Amino acid sequence: VNAHSHAFQRALRGRAESRDPGHPHESFWTWREAMYHLAGRLDPELMWAIARMAYLEMLLSGITTVGEFHYLQHGPGGQPYNNPDEMALQVVRAASDAGLRQVLLRVAYHRAGWQRAAEPVQQRFFDATVDDVVAAAERLRSQGVAVGLAPHSVRAVPGEWLAPLHRQAGAWDVPFHMHLSEQPAEVEACQGEHGVTPVGLLAREGILDERLTAVHAIHLTADDRRRLAEARAGICACPTTERNLGDGILPAQALDGAVFSLGSDSHTQINLLEDARELEYHLRLERLERVVLAERSLASWLWRAATKGGARALGLQAGEIAPGRPADLVAVSLDDPSLVAHDEDELLTNLVFSLERTAIRTVWVGGEVVVAEGRHRAQDGIVADYRTALRKIWP
Amino acid sequence: VNAHSHAFQRALRGRAESRDPGHPHESFWTWREAMYHLAGRLDPELMWAIARMAYLEMLLSGITTVGEFHYLQHGPGGQPYNNPDEMALQVVRAASDAGLRQVLLRVAYHRAGWQRAAEPVQQRFFDATVDDVVAAAERLRSQGVAVGLAPHSVRAVPGEWLAPLHRQAGAWDVPFHMHLSEQPAEVEACQGEHGVTPVGLLAREGILDERLTAVHAIHLTADDRRRLAEARAGICACPTTERNLGDGILPAQALDGAVFSLGSDSHTQINLLEDARELEYHLRLERLERVVLAERSLASWLWRAATKGGARALGLQAGEIAPGRPADLVAVSLDDPSLVAHDEDELLTNLVFSLERTAIRTVWVGGEVVVAEGRHRAQDGIVADYRTALRKIWP
Repeated sequence: VNAHSHAFQRALRGRAESRDPGHPHESFWTWREAMYHLAGRLDPELMWAIARMAYLEMLLSGITTVGEFHYLQHGPGGQPYNNPDEMALQVVRAASDAGLRQVLLRVAYHRAGWQRAAEPVQQRFFDATVDDVVAAAERLRSQGVAVGLAPHSVRAVPGEWLAPLHRQAGAWDVPFHMHLSEQPAEVEACQGEHGVTPVGLLAREGILDERLTAVHAIHLTADDRRRLAEARAGICACPTTERNLGDGILPAQALDGAVFSLGSDSHTQINLLEDARELEYHLRLERLERVVLAERSLASWLWRAATKGGARALGLQAGEIAPGRPADLVAVSLDDPSLVAHDEDELLTNLVFSLERTAIRTVWVGGEVVVAEGRHRAQDGIVADYRTALRKIWP
Repeated sequence: VNAHSHAFQRALRGRAESRDPGHPHESFWTWREAMYHLAGRLDPELMWAIARMAYLEMLLSGITTVGEFHYLQHGPGGQPYNNPDEMALQVVRAASDAGLRQVLLRVAYHRAGWQRAAEPVQQRFFDATVDDVVAAAERLRSQGVAVGLAPHSVRAVPGEWLAPLHRQAGAWDVPFHMHLSEQPAEVEACQGEHGVTPVGLLAREGILDERLTAVHAIHLTADDRRRLAEARAGICACPTTERNLGDGILPAQALDGAVFSLGSDSHTQINLLEDARELEYHLRLERLERVVLAERSLASWLWRAATKGGARALGLQAGEIAPGRPADLVAVSLDDPSLVAHDEDELLTNLVFSLERTAIRTVWVGGEVVVAEGRHRAQDGIVADYRTALRKIWP
């Protein structure tokens, strides 16, 4: 269960791993420039083709469910589409076409940041009011879309938006996600605007609870950590993205009580078990220690984050094989050389720490076979359409 | 080109990612215990079966050449086999059977460490004299084995062994490898014994040069870094192992002039492009920056480490497609979802940063097809023999 995805960012893969000599390391320049170019080019058909490609790769990697953190809503210049939910419905269609279970986390995005002018392309992300966000989510719900609410971050929404959105998520009993403390600049700006850290602001607004899934949660004070842990909040780690963006290392060892999930986020790689092992491995590198996050049961701990933890973050009764649960299943080849094991403990450990994609053979979502013998039923067409989309974006 | 392998450690995969509650994080207890158990059990047939399994997985991942850093030489209790090169010849046979090009780095290993008693099982690693090491390598050479010389580390050989071994490698014009500054304890012990860092000791012994490949090179002083860079020494990074063991992060950004290669080392994963990206990514996590190791050409830089850099470390004219070079080739599917790209730059970037094993379709070594349609010609038998070996090791 992949709890955090920006499907359209799949089209950034391979476009931002270099740097113009004039630009300093810390500017994120290449990545931002490529992201804005991409966001500027997207139309509904491109959004669909790219999202379907990301979802294809998720299924091939053994992911059966995604939480899509969706924030690109409007047409060029911020002009709403005739159907104001056009873009959201395209990512819903992409998941349905690919055969992936999805929860659409309808993002609230209002501004570039505190005392910060918007880039023109950001107009495509913006919501004018909390009511607009709630109305959009309500329209999607009325069409049978599984939704959650997701203020983008303390940077992108005013503080006073947080409580009403959280209250609405509670009224509907749906997930409530937000990016939290991903980079030091975000924490500093929050201190400037609100006089507290992002976690401090969430506490002040009364929204630190089990419904919350905080995505990233990297740059935390000791007090932040204690608060998140005591609230038994969800934490969604996205280490393959966090290492790509140079965000830093999530202090998961100091968040006992929080419930962990994983996300492939920017899709520089789509490999949730690589995310699982990195959550542990990055702490080993930082601390020069081994086996940090659990003792005897480390592989189970990480496996749970990749399965039940994600389902919990998305408010689903999924992520485990049990009576009454949906038949979302993945069959792996026990003869795959990355996996071959001697006993059950070793098998689970190899799944988490060593699995290669060649081991993934069959994937069922809701009882339906979507991947067989390592191939998706519509793979060739999805790849061909994606290639066409890339040509339109990067001419 | 995989410049650093301990093939037998493949059988440790999945056996050491937990920890007895009584043991502290920093003890490496589980890993050492499992490693000694394994090393104690190995006989020539098991050595062959495990090495052949590691080499199978290398070929499936697109590796065509391995530098095998071979240090388990003798029978139980240190008793030499009837053929004193028995174990070395088993790993040579494993490579030949699997169809992998190999350079056998004949290790010199003399002691547990400075003022440190040997574990019983370490007797199987020990050489009595420099002359014994050279004689063993000479016997292998006379049978047509491509060899290099490899003092294990400043911990495992006395300082006075270094110069004669290096001189012999020069006389034969073969590679000279050693583990260097992998963990703080190794550096401290060297300071205690020799009054200098490991790099300082190598400098004093006059063996810091282009023939040297220093494996790991993590815990370096500013002076160490300068010396390695100025010598244009080889540096072999093994990040998937280094993150697993909690060794730390190689300061590659401060070693301009050194020539980088990569190794899968302990084989917790065998994925040299994952090693390549981690060399960059771990620095991003440490520095909270992006694109650290090169500017426009980062993917090429890392790709070179995974190919020509490894060939250079092993003294081979391989790692590139050029007239006169061996036909060691890997064909990838451009339609693999992890790889699909819009232009050549993006393709190379996706190879380095995003490739999944499903993309590897055909592998040739010396013009011979060893992997076709993603499967090795002898895969089923190698996996079955490995499974039998595991049952003997972990009953």
